[in-house]
Amino acid sequence: MEIKVIENVMQYNKQEAELNKNLLTKNNIFMINILSAPGAGKTSLILETIKELKELNDINIGVIEGDIASTFDSEKIKNLIDDVIQINTGGTCHLNASMIYKALEQMDLKKLNLIFIENVGNLICPVGFDLGENYRILISSVSEGDDKPIKYPKAFIKTDLIVLNKIDMIKNSDFNITFFENNVRKINSDVDILKLSCKTKDGFNQWINWVRDVLKR
Amino acid sequence: MEIKVIENVMQYNKQEAELNKNLLTKNNIFMINILSAPGAGKTSLILETIKELKELNDINIGVIEGDIASTFDSEKIKNLIDDVIQINTGGTCHLNASMIYKALEQMDLKKLNLIFIENVGNLICPVGFDLGENYRILISSVSEGDDKPIKYPKAFIKTDLIVLNKIDMIKNSDFNITFFENNVRKINSDVDILKLSCKTKDGFNQWINWVRDVLKR
Repeated sequence: MEIKVIENVMQYNKQEAELNKNLLTKNNIFMINILSAPGAGKTSLILETIKELKELNDINIGVIEGDIASTFDSEKIKNLIDDVIQINTGGTCHLNASMIYKALEQMDLKKLNLIFIENVGNLICPVGFDLGENYRILISSVSEGDDKPIKYPKAFIKTDLIVLNKIDMIKNSDFNITFFENNVRKINSDVDILKLSCKTKDGFNQWINWVRDVLKR
Repeated sequence: MEIKVIENVMQYNKQEAELNKNLLTKNNIFMINILSAPGAGKTSLILETIKELKELNDINIGVIEGDIASTFDSEKIKNLIDDVIQINTGGTCHLNASMIYKALEQMDLKKLNLIFIENVGNLICPVGFDLGENYRILISSVSEGDDKPIKYPKAFIKTDLIVLNKIDMIKNSDFNITFFENNVRKINSDVDILKLSCKTKDGFNQWINWVRDVLKR
């Protein structure tokens, strides 16, 4: 009986994700779902990306913020752009496609061409839930340690891009970048790994170019 | 129907947690359940604590390691002590009491008087699951940012002690310790907050004294 319930949940999520995909295609919007552990830098990546891109006339960004509680992150983003929707999940450890559909309904889709979803900070639960995104990004950070690909493999497998954030911390740490990359390669041989710091902006241009590039496709 | 299933799971976990409690009481063992986000320092805290305490004749430590995958952390601990049990949950985002019961069955309980459980790295799912522990500890780390009590309130409410790790990083960060503490106080007015660094050992003595103190009770 329990398995049956889980199957229904996943099946329902898949259908809702399809609805989101159709809505995005219809409105010519590219949606990026950002996953990470708590404190790895999802909000910082979104904030710094908006600052870099908002002056460009051809890019209009919206953000869907997923949190267990509070509007703490969405308030920071609201200072920069108008289309910010906060989803508070209560106790639920991930966003699902149906939550995203409700958020999309409240956004000015005609105006937007890029939506970032900040998922709930968690390296496990969000992995299985397709939100209808075009791309999924995993942020891992130097301060979490270089063993994360070993300990949370599914998050590193089911992603279209890995951003290794906080590389400014690498000099005072025992983070071994070769060890990290080798362990990623064992489970996901093709994925790109962008190394950057949202704080010092080292390597940030690669990320901005990546975003601009996917928008052109 | 879904709610019914969840009720059964929680009820079953509660019964299993009681079994664990009885087993621990019978064997005069104190068990500490450690929660945190990925990379906050659960394994480091356990390793450094074992190094400090293992020379003492009156303290015999066992460890139950919870991970989605791998034996990476338990191998490090196995270099220091014999009683280390690895639980790989597959995809499950938390340990439950029944997993702990199976681990306890494999440990030399007559020899031990202190067991650390390293829960799965996650600030959400493990919170609701009593494992039969005597104390629960939450580790938050400076590199995760000072907003975690706002964003993951239940983890900060349902704990007997908060360890703020990586305080050696505070000088090069924008972590505001007063902001962190004030937000903890709003939701958990009485909990102790120990500030330390497993790396530099700043403040580590307070933690060792805390452990020795709870063992005397």
